[in-house]
Amino acid sequence: MHHSPRHCDLLLFAGHLVTQNTTRTVHADAGIAVQDGRVAALGARHELEQDWIAGRRLDFPEGVIFPGFINGHTHAAMSWFRGLADDLPLMDWLQRHIFPAEQRHTPRTVELGALLSCAEMLAAGITCFADMHFWADAVARAAHTAGMRAMVGEVIFGFPTPASPTVKAALERSHALREQLQHDERRRICVAPHSVYTTTAAMLTHAAALSDLWKCPLCIHAAESPAETAQSLSQHGRRPLEHLDALGLLGPRTVLAHGVDLLPREIELLAARGAAVIHNPRSNMKLASGVAPVPELLAAGVPVGLGTDGSGSNNQLNLFAEMSACALLHKGTRKQADTLPAQTVLDMATCNAADALRWPELGRLVVDGPADLAVVDGSLPHLQPMADPISHAVYSMHGGEVTLTMVAGEILYENNRHTRIDLDALRREMQDCRFAADARPGAAA
Amino acid sequence: MHHSPRHCDLLLFAGHLVTQNTTRTVHADAGIAVQDGRVAALGARHELEQDWIAGRRLDFPEGVIFPGFINGHTHAAMSWFRGLADDLPLMDWLQRHIFPAEQRHTPRTVELGALLSCAEMLAAGITCFADMHFWADAVARAAHTAGMRAMVGEVIFGFPTPASPTVKAALERSHALREQLQHDERRRICVAPHSVYTTTAAMLTHAAALSDLWKCPLCIHAAESPAETAQSLSQHGRRPLEHLDALGLLGPRTVLAHGVDLLPREIELLAARGAAVIHNPRSNMKLASGVAPVPELLAAGVPVGLGTDGSGSNNQLNLFAEMSACALLHKGTRKQADTLPAQTVLDMATCNAADALRWPELGRLVVDGPADLAVVDGSLPHLQPMADPISHAVYSMHGGEVTLTMVAGEILYENNRHTRIDLDALRREMQDCRFAADARPGAAA
Repeated sequence: MHHSPRHCDLLLFAGHLVTQNTTRTVHADAGIAVQDGRVAALGARHELEQDWIAGRRLDFPEGVIFPGFINGHTHAAMSWFRGLADDLPLMDWLQRHIFPAEQRHTPRTVELGALLSCAEMLAAGITCFADMHFWADAVARAAHTAGMRAMVGEVIFGFPTPASPTVKAALERSHALREQLQHDERRRICVAPHSVYTTTAAMLTHAAALSDLWKCPLCIHAAESPAETAQSLSQHGRRPLEHLDALGLLGPRTVLAHGVDLLPREIELLAARGAAVIHNPRSNMKLASGVAPVPELLAAGVPVGLGTDGSGSNNQLNLFAEMSACALLHKGTRKQADTLPAQTVLDMATCNAADALRWPELGRLVVDGPADLAVVDGSLPHLQPMADPISHAVYSMHGGEVTLTMVAGEILYENNRHTRIDLDALRREMQDCRFAADARPGAAA
Repeated sequence: MHHSPRHCDLLLFAGHLVTQNTTRTVHADAGIAVQDGRVAALGARHELEQDWIAGRRLDFPEGVIFPGFINGHTHAAMSWFRGLADDLPLMDWLQRHIFPAEQRHTPRTVELGALLSCAEMLAAGITCFADMHFWADAVARAAHTAGMRAMVGEVIFGFPTPASPTVKAALERSHALREQLQHDERRRICVAPHSVYTTTAAMLTHAAALSDLWKCPLCIHAAESPAETAQSLSQHGRRPLEHLDALGLLGPRTVLAHGVDLLPREIELLAARGAAVIHNPRSNMKLASGVAPVPELLAAGVPVGLGTDGSGSNNQLNLFAEMSACALLHKGTRKQADTLPAQTVLDMATCNAADALRWPELGRLVVDGPADLAVVDGSLPHLQPMADPISHAVYSMHGGEVTLTMVAGEILYENNRHTRIDLDALRREMQDCRFAADARPGAAA
């Protein structure tokens, strides 16, 4: 029996379609029908060809479609600081280089830096990022310009920032951001106290109350390094997680960035509270913070996503690099080669990151779900033979193979061009801006 | 006073020129004059413009010129096995998957696989590779087709290979290869016994004698993992390095691939003997072999180059990925962020790799040296701002940014196209070949 074909906005075909659905189905020679920004249908090419007629048709016979990658933790405005201060440990890097450089920011420099990072992320197939920064409205503006999904939080520090001379001011900025994004389709907010070593108990309690009130994630750097633990013990008499838990900050809305210096009982605590962790392996390695106990976190049932951290400590916002680093680091340091197989790591960059950020409709390609995706060119020599797209995603791809990135059915990057970002104009404005030069060591104050 | 300008084959200009000369000079807005495959002059753009007239002129105002990257250890024919058997430890992977699959090779499959790897390496800016495989003449043929520099060795095993039913046959193949390449400009040979656990003492002694006679490097896998050490102890009653030294295999022509499971006294021994090591961090991590003591090797004065190993255990032949992995792994595992700074790691992928392979004119751009180089597109968003090309090479680039690769003044890769390799024809032939499908687990024998 024949039905007449239905109409959709776009039909997208490829050699492989990696769904990341609950059974982790990979379709060969398959496609997606996109309508109103969502997946209207997906599956074998010949079935879609029968059932759908499209306004636009794109065919990548040697391409691989992945769900859009999710960067679970970054500071998009930090692209200014790429290569500014390499080869330094976390606390030196942060307190002697990054915090002082950040004091020179203006809303415009935050926006420009974040927009550059959006361009970088889209070019590597990232469709959504979670961000903590001051002037988070400027970060949100960059995400809006770029068309990306973003979860943005106005970072709350115990010291003045260029955006907020007082904690009260930072909280007010959070309120304003919430008002602004309340009905936005692609952007959400989180409450974002920076860390236990840059805040007071009162500030953390206030942040937790806002997260409860607004039913939004609470994102915080936590347990990033032994130095942070030592600082927390000396400031608060408690380890970072003990401190957070005592103040009521560990719960099913909590998203901890890093989670490196964790005791077994703290991993159990995270699982019991329903908190999530974002793992940033390249940043953790570069800042010599240690190796997060990711296999134990996963075994305990803690949702673990992947993140890049900011460009100052990584120095690339690219989840292919992060997936490789994650898969290899844990095998290498445990001397156990079956640690974190490719599928587990791909999950951390897609559906698990979405779960960790409490945005569970993202990170998978399913009917009625958002049409957020990346297409990779599988014809390149380093992807031959295309035996296993999952293995290739984690071990062979570097991110430069992305040919198309789409959010909510809208193409934002295609054939080396950004559809919404004028990269040349952005680069010119950044080059003309004294901010970059001023941030370099030795620059006149 | 004015001289009349001299003529050269090619003038190449870029935003930055990373020479890797003895003082590690980086020129901004600079260029290279190429004549007869060598660097006739290099330096500031305006000086070259005055002094030289060229048949061809290439200008990459936002590009970065690096010396061609040197892959110090690989098995180019293994591209067939990319993603074949992930997440397994070295001895399982090798003995249960790779060795059996390799029994199906023919000279043609070795050549095809190696040619695909040449295409992959050229696309990532690699101009020279050191290779161990049976039917090394087929690997050498692929390098010749591709135009790459290569140091190829006929691998010597204690068991039959498809190329050599006996050790004598393998040695005869080495002799024939030496005859063939003796006067080749781009290709050299090495003597290549596989390892201490796949050879006998007599074979190793013979190999050492050939290396002495031919004054060519002796390349061997050694100290790759604790499992290898255990096997050597049980087979020979000695650790791998003790065994090699007792047989006279450690000397200033020796190139050890891996060097992971080394005692402090073995590091001193390597330094005393003048032997070199090729570090393969991604392969070592993936196979859970352990972390090579690279900082100690460098401190002892051992030349250490970087290698990718083969596509079966990596799964990309890309020195940008390897540089990132190297810089981050050692910081992360030592919890010391100033371990292996960017310049040291770039050295390992260029000039130090050349020194390790005893081919010291490679890996640096100097007047009268070979015009082997790679140009990277510095205008991409993830390379903004271009504050420090050395930092960017190690921490920000992924290899997909390479726009031009040149060996001996000849462009072999430009704007996503290989000038000598017909990639489409190669891929078609590989797809039509039963070898790939047969190698997969579960395939009928």
